[in-house]
Amino acid sequence: RQSLTIGLIPADGIGREVIPAAREAILAVQSELPQVKFIDLLAGWETFTRTGTALPRETVQALKEDCDCALFGSVSSPSRKVAGYSSPIVALRKELDLYANIRPVSSVSADRTQPPAVDLIVVRENTECLYVKDEKLIHTENGKEARATRLITERASTRIGKIAFELAKARSRKLLTIIHKSNVLSVTDGLFRESVRAVPGLPGIDGRFDDVTIEEQLVDSAVYRLFREPQIFDVMVAPNLYGDIISDAAAALVGSLGVIPSINAGDNFVMGEPVHGSAPDIAGKGIANPVASIRSAALMLRHLGYVSAADKIDKAVDDTLAPAEILTADLGGKHSTTEVTDHIMGLIKKQYN
Amino acid sequence: RQSLTIGLIPADGIGREVIPAAREAILAVQSELPQVKFIDLLAGWETFTRTGTALPRETVQALKEDCDCALFGSVSSPSRKVAGYSSPIVALRKELDLYANIRPVSSVSADRTQPPAVDLIVVRENTECLYVKDEKLIHTENGKEARATRLITERASTRIGKIAFELAKARSRKLLTIIHKSNVLSVTDGLFRESVRAVPGLPGIDGRFDDVTIEEQLVDSAVYRLFREPQIFDVMVAPNLYGDIISDAAAALVGSLGVIPSINAGDNFVMGEPVHGSAPDIAGKGIANPVASIRSAALMLRHLGYVSAADKIDKAVDDTLAPAEILTADLGGKHSTTEVTDHIMGLIKKQYN
Ligand SMILES: CC(C)[C@H](C(=O)O)[C@@H](O)C(=O)O
Ligand SMILES: CC(C)[C@H](C(=O)O)[C@@H](O)C(=O)O
Repeated sequence: RQSLTIGLIPADGIGREVIPAAREAILAVQSELPQVKFIDLLAGWETFTRTGTALPRETVQALKEDCDCALFGSVSSPSRKVAGYSSPIVALRKELDLYANIRPVSSVSADRTQPPAVDLIVVRENTECLYVKDEKLIHTENGKEARATRLITERASTRIGKIAFELAKARSRKLLTIIHKSNVLSVTDGLFRESVRAVPGLPGIDGRFDDVTIEEQLVDSAVYRLFREPQIFDVMVAPNLYGDIISDAAAALVGSLGVIPSINAGDNFVMGEPVHGSAPDIAGKGIANPVASIRSAALMLRHLGYVSAADKIDKAVDDTLAPAEILTADLGGKHSTTEVTDHIMGLIKKQYN
Repeated sequence: RQSLTIGLIPADGIGREVIPAAREAILAVQSELPQVKFIDLLAGWETFTRTGTALPRETVQALKEDCDCALFGSVSSPSRKVAGYSSPIVALRKELDLYANIRPVSSVSADRTQPPAVDLIVVRENTECLYVKDEKLIHTENGKEARATRLITERASTRIGKIAFELAKARSRKLLTIIHKSNVLSVTDGLFRESVRAVPGLPGIDGRFDDVTIEEQLVDSAVYRLFREPQIFDVMVAPNLYGDIISDAAAALVGSLGVIPSINAGDNFVMGEPVHGSAPDIAGKGIANPVASIRSAALMLRHLGYVSAADKIDKAVDDTLAPAEILTADLGGKHSTTEVTDHIMGLIKKQYN
């Protein structure tokens, strides 16, 4: 790769405040990357109110034709159904076939000699389940009736299972937990769990596959146990909606959604995205936590193979969070987005001296 | 009512150990009740393995024809799909049209002068959503594809909304939060939220209805906020699956699923049910927590109008949990199911002296 072209889609709310921080982080490690270029792209609720579409064709086209990867901020959604509006992030995941949503959640404790209390990765299927948005409304003599389709395919479940299995294999605990609700949804969730289980082939005599242990957990019970004993989880693989809920639950354990990164990954494209939303209550105040976004940039670089650059960003973030001196309000601190970003950039630069 | 006939369906696992405790609690307050009769009924996985059906016709018939109410224990489910097996609790809810699953979750603190840290009620729609179990599997050239239908009707959403609204109105904080995911499921969850919102009519000038404040929260964010700031919730109303997950999440906040009761209520029948499962790992050891089951009996009696009897049971439970001396293992104690039950029974009887 001669150059690395990165689409920047801040979208709405605090997305506009944190994506610039992620951009800075990438620039801070650019000596380890091919020639970096950024392309600013539009999407979101504000774009919809101005142009009538939440995801302009030019944005999709630029991502497909000109970009190697992208960073997405966050979208606001209308509080009631608005004709013609539909979530651009859900559309982008499908349009670019970014089928794996990978969300690592780990705590950074002040005592760095201790292992983190929470250290897991949620691997969320990103293209189907109820997110196919196949919904219908009919009027009956008993009133309105709405139906949505939940789609689970062997193909999508297998490919997400593969990603999750490979991630589990590369970790020290090598534990993969399949999240489902097959006691109720025996056909759809049955297909999900069986497809994931089929990925590694047959277990060895100890019930392990390539040293990976495979467990299962019903989604309700998984949320309960996440709160009670998060240390029992390593890699969790889940259909789309359960993955959405579980990753927010896990985020709550480490102090703030403001520190949780993700990538939306496909076979040919990757898009970093902080897990938090557009946070209209604090948008524009300059106090949003830039960490989720900066970590998403690192995760994206790591996925593209720029491991040493990603390590530097992650180390700078950890070295900021652990002493807990320079923090934004969501983590109980008093510092601004800019102050936290500057501090992290300083710690990145130090590593090159 | 001359008599009160109660169906007892312990079903599987620890259900068999805790339903007898609930029975004892009812007997302990029987002086305030009409003539109490119990009918023992079968259901569950073990029944399935012996008889080929998880919910015998006689059980349903007895409930419909002979019983005023019932207590259900917990069911085990097979770890893989078994032809002909289907969850008897889901079937019972539908068969008896027990459309409201009411799950109060509150913490009991040692310092009784302090308000509880968590004090909320999850009101879960109990008959539709993905629980209609309308699933299909097809074989395509790309492999298997499974589809499930998520049904949301105006009628069911309105009636659960009414129950939730009345519950909120009767509480001191009078706050009702509608849980949904209408940023993705704009049609089905849109119908749910609009139907609930339509229940109270038009708001007063302060945006309140009959003094009740109505708020909304996306399900992923609701789980996150439940962990972070549970005190912001009072009554939460949710479609079936979200309610399932949210009530387990709330349970985690108060120390153990072993203390969370529920009722499945319809217009003509009510069935108490501890929220915990059959817990195969501890079944048969005599160490299951009887509190969820005993509280479910109280909740059922309260729903039937026997408020003073229910109060006595609840007080005995609170007076057991607050000093935290006689507790089962799930709460960090060392006492058996029988010891905890006996202690609670003693505290009930004391109130009649
Ligand atoms: C904004 C919303 C559509 C989205 C989702 O549900 O996927 C968000 O909650 C997320 O987790 O990325
Ligand atoms: C056992 C299962 C079918 C049930 C449900 O999902 O409703 C349980 O989790 C519950 O919460 O009562």
